[in-house]
Amino acid sequence: MGLKSEILQKIENNTVKVGILGLGYVGLPLAVTFAKNDVEVLGFEKSEKKAAMANSGENYIGDVEDEDLETVVKKGRFTATTDFNRIKECDAIFICVPTPLDRFRKPDMAYIEGSCLEIGRFMKKGTFIALESTTYPTTTEDFMLPIIERESGMTHGYDFWLAYSPERVDPGNQTYKTENTPKVLGAMTEDGNEIGLAIYSKAIQQIHVVSSPKAAEMVKILENTYRLINISLINELALLSGKMDINIWEVIDAAKTKPYGFQAFYPGPGIGGHCIPLDPFYLEYIAKKFDFDLSMINTAGHIDMLMPHRMTIKITSALNRHKKSVNGSRILFLGVAYKPNIDDERESPALKIIQEVANKGGLVDFYDPYIETAKTEDGTEYSSIDDLSNLRDYDCVIVTTKHKDFDFSDLAEKSQLIVDLQNAYATSTEDIYKL
Amino acid sequence: MGLKSEILQKIENNTVKVGILGLGYVGLPLAVTFAKNDVEVLGFEKSEKKAAMANSGENYIGDVEDEDLETVVKKGRFTATTDFNRIKECDAIFICVPTPLDRFRKPDMAYIEGSCLEIGRFMKKGTFIALESTTYPTTTEDFMLPIIERESGMTHGYDFWLAYSPERVDPGNQTYKTENTPKVLGAMTEDGNEIGLAIYSKAIQQIHVVSSPKAAEMVKILENTYRLINISLINELALLSGKMDINIWEVIDAAKTKPYGFQAFYPGPGIGGHCIPLDPFYLEYIAKKFDFDLSMINTAGHIDMLMPHRMTIKITSALNRHKKSVNGSRILFLGVAYKPNIDDERESPALKIIQEVANKGGLVDFYDPYIETAKTEDGTEYSSIDDLSNLRDYDCVIVTTKHKDFDFSDLAEKSQLIVDLQNAYATSTEDIYKL
Repeated sequence: MGLKSEILQKIENNTVKVGILGLGYVGLPLAVTFAKNDVEVLGFEKSEKKAAMANSGENYIGDVEDEDLETVVKKGRFTATTDFNRIKECDAIFICVPTPLDRFRKPDMAYIEGSCLEIGRFMKKGTFIALESTTYPTTTEDFMLPIIERESGMTHGYDFWLAYSPERVDPGNQTYKTENTPKVLGAMTEDGNEIGLAIYSKAIQQIHVVSSPKAAEMVKILENTYRLINISLINELALLSGKMDINIWEVIDAAKTKPYGFQAFYPGPGIGGHCIPLDPFYLEYIAKKFDFDLSMINTAGHIDMLMPHRMTIKITSALNRHKKSVNGSRILFLGVAYKPNIDDERESPALKIIQEVANKGGLVDFYDPYIETAKTEDGTEYSSIDDLSNLRDYDCVIVTTKHKDFDFSDLAEKSQLIVDLQNAYATSTEDIYKL
Repeated sequence: MGLKSEILQKIENNTVKVGILGLGYVGLPLAVTFAKNDVEVLGFEKSEKKAAMANSGENYIGDVEDEDLETVVKKGRFTATTDFNRIKECDAIFICVPTPLDRFRKPDMAYIEGSCLEIGRFMKKGTFIALESTTYPTTTEDFMLPIIERESGMTHGYDFWLAYSPERVDPGNQTYKTENTPKVLGAMTEDGNEIGLAIYSKAIQQIHVVSSPKAAEMVKILENTYRLINISLINELALLSGKMDINIWEVIDAAKTKPYGFQAFYPGPGIGGHCIPLDPFYLEYIAKKFDFDLSMINTAGHIDMLMPHRMTIKITSALNRHKKSVNGSRILFLGVAYKPNIDDERESPALKIIQEVANKGGLVDFYDPYIETAKTEDGTEYSSIDDLSNLRDYDCVIVTTKHKDFDFSDLAEKSQLIVDLQNAYATSTEDIYKL
């Protein structure tokens, strides 16, 4: 029996063993989803702490149900390990590692490279491999394939199959989870697509197959670039509207009544999270190799880089109304999570504003019911204050994240001055300064 | 009885008389919609030809049903006139005149100014006035109001009411017409909103009231700027994808499977029509007055200005495959309408490409079942060829508009070479060059 028939039969018999590299906000939900559907899953994780937590059924990812993790661990369908040698046990491997940008907005491919080295070193013949991390088009074929073939001595299409299938995790989304979010799949060969379709179908309801890994890579970048440029546009229009004394949120609500050809985006203090501020710059990076300048992404990047600075200016202007300077004022930030009701402060614009305000002599605190401590880029660590009982002591309160836990009418009563960067209040007043 | 109660009562009694300035693609549908709902409408039109056609029930606008126009004319609910003196007969006036850009991309306000002069000169006390033409925020209050008050000697809020309510006409849209497309309304005063709501409700199902004319002005610009920047983004990504040998349409179709946070836009040879290529530059114009540079619109404008030129390069590259130059080649353009299945070639990118190709020595013809003759910017007039019986004689056929009337598989058989700028064919081949 050929290797392809073998893996297809294992999938059908449900004797297939799935390996997931990286048990973060993508990998853990994927692992649990496979395991819930009775597939045996081995999770690979560098962090001993995370692996141990996972193995004791202790959940650390917001989008995973505690009970689901506990159940699949108890049933023995999911085990975490730090021993990458065990890659050889797996029939299919899904890479869910970070793809950050370095401080100069260049792709940091170290995690993908590391994964390819481990896989090349340890995998057995007949393995299906899919990368899920967001990256630039051509990564799978031009970056990953040579490493895996070199390390393994195996030949693609005969000994193993390589594919790209982007994660579409939207932290905090209550409707769309791993299972019911359609998944795009682009393998290097038709065999790869056939195997990938069979294995993903064990856990995910709808798989959309495209003709190549690079098409699939472009899909993910298009989705997030779409969001980046639209958020950037609305941020720019919000700044102009502020100058023109137009309430941009009223405008967006009215534009939403158009029943076709419009999708609403909302302004805010900047762009946060692990996708929108990063992914488009992966594309910008590879475009240069094709002598191509992506001017829309470039422009959007400019707007977003400046947003925290512009928000600091808003804070300065607001304090100025009360004849105060940033220097020496006590300033409280409400929320450092990058979006409401989650415990993730990656790339959060709030932290960038905090750093700039602190540098100007502002005496900064933050309060976030979801996040205990947070670090600004310069390494300063802040801890959330315990509660909002001393609001009156702050010269200015900044609404940076609109957590559902905040009681804004109560806040308005008890604060001296509010800078509202999240449309928490309908209109500007003497003591409420709206973005 | 006060003027306000008077007009409100007329609206309620259905004795109100509506005047519509400009019987083009916005004004005529609006006139017919009011008249169909039994409101008496007087249409003002500078063109004697158009006024005569309208009065004889002869329809010249694609989105108006011939029968509807005929019926309302016969019933005497709709009359067209070239006599602006008759503005004094009207209780409510809707301005539906063009707002083009001049050759330097600056707003051409002549039509709005002219309308204000006529209205100021002839209107009676107690008139409600709404501008429907797209324009930059502050136009209604800062540009129109002073002219009308000066010409009429009347005072706003006492003698008349002024509002902005943007048209949302989408030519060729089979689902959303004037009647069932929600309408945004922003008057200068609450009385104005009350009257405007009452009168528009005679003809339009849903009215969304905002707090000011400038908010309503921004709504329309936001809607079209959203489209401009997204089409520009996808055009830019299409050009990059061409270089990277990625099929951008396959990518878009796959991205569309994301069930949230994505709206699909499609690339093409450039941006046409009377809205998307123009409206955002109205905003760019006024933003300067507020010392504000709208970088997203500016960048999008750059991409779009260059698209026809880039398409010419694609044509050159395609001909090069057949060892031919543009100079001396017979080149047929399929479609000069700016979008499929309509008879409107305003701002059509096809005409810009035709001009450039002709300047380079290409022997150009076009075929468009919806458009008989078309003029390029340099004044050259072209007539559509009669049929496609001599396709073989053309060195190259360019698909610029995807009219439903074209049989693309037949075209592929009979053409030497096709440059497909509209995804008429699924894949590139030796003789089909895809954007």
